[in-house]
Amino acid sequence: MARKTFREMLEDRWGRENFVCVGLDPVYEKLPKAVCDPGNMATSIMNFNARIVDATKDLVCAYKPNSAFYEALGKLGMYALRETVAHIREAAPDVPVILDAKRGDIGNTNEGYVRAAFDYFEADAITVNPYLGAEALQPFLDKREKGIFVLCRTSNPGAGELQDLQIAEDPLYLHVARHVARKWNKWGNCALVVGATCPDELAEVRREVGDLPILIPGIGAQGGELEKTVRAGRDSRRRGMLVNSSRGVLYASRGEDYAAAARHEVEKLRSAVNACR
Amino acid sequence: MARKTFREMLEDRWGRENFVCVGLDPVYEKLPKAVCDPGNMATSIMNFNARIVDATKDLVCAYKPNSAFYEALGKLGMYALRETVAHIREAAPDVPVILDAKRGDIGNTNEGYVRAAFDYFEADAITVNPYLGAEALQPFLDKREKGIFVLCRTSNPGAGELQDLQIAEDPLYLHVARHVARKWNKWGNCALVVGATCPDELAEVRREVGDLPILIPGIGAQGGELEKTVRAGRDSRRRGMLVNSSRGVLYASRGEDYAAAARHEVEKLRSAVNACR
Repeated sequence: MARKTFREMLEDRWGRENFVCVGLDPVYEKLPKAVCDPGNMATSIMNFNARIVDATKDLVCAYKPNSAFYEALGKLGMYALRETVAHIREAAPDVPVILDAKRGDIGNTNEGYVRAAFDYFEADAITVNPYLGAEALQPFLDKREKGIFVLCRTSNPGAGELQDLQIAEDPLYLHVARHVARKWNKWGNCALVVGATCPDELAEVRREVGDLPILIPGIGAQGGELEKTVRAGRDSRRRGMLVNSSRGVLYASRGEDYAAAARHEVEKLRSAVNACR
Repeated sequence: MARKTFREMLEDRWGRENFVCVGLDPVYEKLPKAVCDPGNMATSIMNFNARIVDATKDLVCAYKPNSAFYEALGKLGMYALRETVAHIREAAPDVPVILDAKRGDIGNTNEGYVRAAFDYFEADAITVNPYLGAEALQPFLDKREKGIFVLCRTSNPGAGELQDLQIAEDPLYLHVARHVARKWNKWGNCALVVGATCPDELAEVRREVGDLPILIPGIGAQGGELEKTVRAGRDSRRRGMLVNSSRGVLYASRGEDYAAAARHEVEKLRSAVNACR
């Protein structure tokens, strides 16, 4: 049976009240001792990810490995990333995988990134940077069955340096939101990234983009407030959000109970989101 | 002996009247038959790049492999990229390597990209996307000995969608240029990317940023006009430019003479740049 589109998978997950996205951003030095094999870092990371997935797969709407954490390890990291996605597709075939790669180059060059993300790693969605415009990102936008998450207002402290610059009446990030919702989303495969660290901006973006899915990083370790975030981020159907947590889940315990502790954290976050959406 | 900083290497190359940067963006299907081994695409690409480097190394200011072309091939591509950089460092130790990766994530995540670019691939410089701001890009900006090329006005037809939005009196890309020149360049390691497809914008950027190095893609296959570009892009010392050509050099001939033909193309471009700078 053909795999569903990213959006179909996401709607199914939301239908089960799953709004938590787990960021699979492993740093070898922070992993629980039980999983560490210094002679085989890539396998350690892969095994760690697999246990986190097995322990949380019924509670999440997506997994989001960030490419930088894998690229740091060179070809071993690529192996770990590819095997991680393969494990998710095997053990949790209903849960889509978002490759957080923040890519973006000129048109024909993006074909290489498209092949890497969707053919080599077999992700269901990718994050992209809007700076080069829709024309450049067309190879991503043309993948109707995939999810294309465009950075809008990011969660880092200095995000506003360019993103908050005022153009006519509105900041740049709101122009990005508008362009994506009105022009880039021809195939209904677009989504946005807006940090939980700026709930007012998130609310503004939501007013602008209707029911477009929004990936919301920055809850937990980055300090975003949950209730305010959920009220700002939900769509007209009280869906529309992927609330991401990475460190809070992955490092919930560094003991042998790390997988159970990760599940407990996801359960808590899932309940908290559902309580206020 | 310790390797020189990127900027020192670049000044040495400019001192020899070398302003051409060769983009090493190989597509297997386009390679000369003489170099193709379908059973070993990565080695074919590596060998092709090595021959191009050997044939042009005295005429260029830098080599610029674009990561997307290698990532498209998965782990074989990583191998080809790593070996390509290793070959340049061995055969042309005076020529710096710019990894064209257009990266950019939030602060701590960028550490992974820094490790990949500078420790794993051993590049001398990298291209980054400005959208997340200087605070996020700090792990790159902190690498004093490396070159950090920030996308400013890109060479694709749709570049203006966001980059030309007017903020107060000026377009976004000019704000980026100003921020980089005045605030981001604390260690003197910053540079910009401005496409040859927009010489008027290039001239404006040059007026704004003093003698900051500018990487200029889009000559040749992308249609930029050389003379106008050089007059717009040169700095007060008649230096300051890295004029990039990729397809025009790599595919100058698909016969067995491909390396000599590539050298001929670089010689022509080098003379043309020097004639009008």
